[in-house]
Amino acid sequence: MIEINFESDVNVGKTRELLGEILADPMGGWSVLPFLINEKELNTIKKAAVDIQSKAEILVCIGIGGSYLGHRAIIEALRPKGVRIVYAGNSLSKKELEFALSEVGEKDFAINVISKSGTTLEPAIAFDVFKKKLVEKYGEVEAKKRIFATTDAKKGTLHDEAVENGYTRFVVPDDVGGRYSVLTVVGLLPLAVAGVDIDALLSGAREMAESIIKNPLDIKNQGATTPVRSDEIIRKNPMVRYAWIRKALYQRDYDTEVFASFEPATMYFNEWLKQLFGESEGKGRQGIWPASVIYSTDLHSLGQFMQDGRRNLWETVINYPTDELNEKVMTAVCAAHTMGKIPVLKISVSSYDEKGFGELIYFFEMACAISAKLMGVNPFDQPGVEAYKVELKKLMEEK
Amino acid sequence: MIEINFESDVNVGKTRELLGEILADPMGGWSVLPFLINEKELNTIKKAAVDIQSKAEILVCIGIGGSYLGHRAIIEALRPKGVRIVYAGNSLSKKELEFALSEVGEKDFAINVISKSGTTLEPAIAFDVFKKKLVEKYGEVEAKKRIFATTDAKKGTLHDEAVENGYTRFVVPDDVGGRYSVLTVVGLLPLAVAGVDIDALLSGAREMAESIIKNPLDIKNQGATTPVRSDEIIRKNPMVRYAWIRKALYQRDYDTEVFASFEPATMYFNEWLKQLFGESEGKGRQGIWPASVIYSTDLHSLGQFMQDGRRNLWETVINYPTDELNEKVMTAVCAAHTMGKIPVLKISVSSYDEKGFGELIYFFEMACAISAKLMGVNPFDQPGVEAYKVELKKLMEEK
Repeated sequence: MIEINFESDVNVGKTRELLGEILADPMGGWSVLPFLINEKELNTIKKAAVDIQSKAEILVCIGIGGSYLGHRAIIEALRPKGVRIVYAGNSLSKKELEFALSEVGEKDFAINVISKSGTTLEPAIAFDVFKKKLVEKYGEVEAKKRIFATTDAKKGTLHDEAVENGYTRFVVPDDVGGRYSVLTVVGLLPLAVAGVDIDALLSGAREMAESIIKNPLDIKNQGATTPVRSDEIIRKNPMVRYAWIRKALYQRDYDTEVFASFEPATMYFNEWLKQLFGESEGKGRQGIWPASVIYSTDLHSLGQFMQDGRRNLWETVINYPTDELNEKVMTAVCAAHTMGKIPVLKISVSSYDEKGFGELIYFFEMACAISAKLMGVNPFDQPGVEAYKVELKKLMEEK
Repeated sequence: MIEINFESDVNVGKTRELLGEILADPMGGWSVLPFLINEKELNTIKKAAVDIQSKAEILVCIGIGGSYLGHRAIIEALRPKGVRIVYAGNSLSKKELEFALSEVGEKDFAINVISKSGTTLEPAIAFDVFKKKLVEKYGEVEAKKRIFATTDAKKGTLHDEAVENGYTRFVVPDDVGGRYSVLTVVGLLPLAVAGVDIDALLSGAREMAESIIKNPLDIKNQGATTPVRSDEIIRKNPMVRYAWIRKALYQRDYDTEVFASFEPATMYFNEWLKQLFGESEGKGRQGIWPASVIYSTDLHSLGQFMQDGRRNLWETVINYPTDELNEKVMTAVCAAHTMGKIPVLKISVSSYDEKGFGELIYFFEMACAISAKLMGVNPFDQPGVEAYKVELKKLMEEK
């Protein structure tokens, strides 16, 4: 369960309209995903995970952006006991690629390459390098059994290569964009391999989804806004309230949101949040700048600015259940910052585990989508990123 | 050598005045530190490092804020091959402390506890826990030989305990604040243990210092501004120019500086920069908000905002020498963001090694001190952090 510590004016009619748009959006698939993912699909993922666990000490996860941050966030936060993940293909640094190679060393490994098109430069280069290592170590035939490709259902470089070579294939859904994809196979396969309980993760997300949508299957059938819950429930829903308070703060010239956590292991979850909000809202020369801090470490650094610097920022504390002392510090810090005249929102989740993170993921995805729409921008595109990808592709073709 | 890619109006007289203030400040000791640290002091550090390397697989570094971030930044960036460092005492999360304990496990270890007063809660708690583990593993006598205390010269809880028990002691200088302390023994001991060439690090810092100060030893003797170099040299100095361009941008309502790097291993160096600038400038209800990105990862996340979001931010690219492809991407990204109408500053360092990071450390420390003074704030205090420490201490006494 997720609770927030503030009230806000919610325009229920407008919210209902936006929810209808989100659910019906060609890229809105993530919103009903926790209901639609079925036993068969999950079993295929789990089977592949068991297969990888049986033959690899390391899974090299190759992907960038939305194909990378979501699962890493959960794995870093939960430190599960399964197969170790080594990440590659999320930068063009040669140093970094060589480091990933040295991390794998002589250990048994498999590859999960995650790319819808297969042409994004960073993962494409890393995939080439690790594929070569795999073939050298295991030979052509066995190598093919150790490559798991998460890609488009029907087309693209990676799809074609996977079909030709008989890699185990998983499908990136067409109606879910990268930064909303952690609860698809994009995230679920590496999570399962690492030892995360993906059923519990999905159950948390489903609980959040049910708090706002009453009959999810109707959505796909009818494309209507009817499956949304009653006015009263919408008005009180924490996702909705969070979206509206963000709008209100932005209108009052609060233009920087600082996500704060008291658990250092959630650093990458903060990164995921920055991707989600930054890429969804930073458009058309506007947007709330998403920043993050980890306390109490950052109380001894950015904490100074939070307490006493420019007052254009607010703090969104993600209140994970924690031990008594850490909890006391959180209370003291929130009080101090409130006295320092910055708004302090507190988003509390009831458990620090798979279920809790499932709730948080859906909470932030839905809140972000509503919020971006309240700002008048499309939460699901990323024209700036596409522009950079085009530039990169040109560079690659020159090479 | 460090170069920057832009010109700026520099008021040389004002700069000269501020440099005089910085050099004469009771907390300005860091500015002449690369000259003053002597062979004897360095040899003591190196001897302790060799001692630790001979008997420990892991050095548990206990410290928070300025006693933590600086050395971690360099170690993460350079990935030296010496003793592995496990960090503790930089948060109050029990989860985190337990994780650090499990990382040490049954391995041979030693402790470097870094705290000027010894009363800061986070390191004090972690020190208690690891000290207990040390005594259990090695007995009272040997445990004392495995504790290296970096603390005040004459007073404080940790000082007294260290004297009483005969721990090897190192002194945190009185004239260097936490966030400027990485080139003192605070940073140098863990760096040497980890396998970083501290002579090369200091030589880089010294080179930068010499670019602006001509006769460092005179400073301490005379407290005068005469040791500062000529007007023409000051006007062209990259540290000075960087400070003035920051002021100019801030006056034009650019209020967020995004430190960008194309080397993922420099993520903690970005964190150190955020601490340095945030804690030095975020005061009196003003300040430039320091943020950071790692490319190309973040081109697929915050990159959208950089390209197309609100135009209140500028980008300070730290241009490490890198491979050809990564370099090309950097050029393309800088061009794209410039077209997207955000100012893109490029700070180029000539080598990705100890010397280069030594240069960068001094570069940013001096630029930050000048910059804060141009804003009219004291670069060396942290009233907001002190406020939080007081609150924490109260909490501790209640316990």
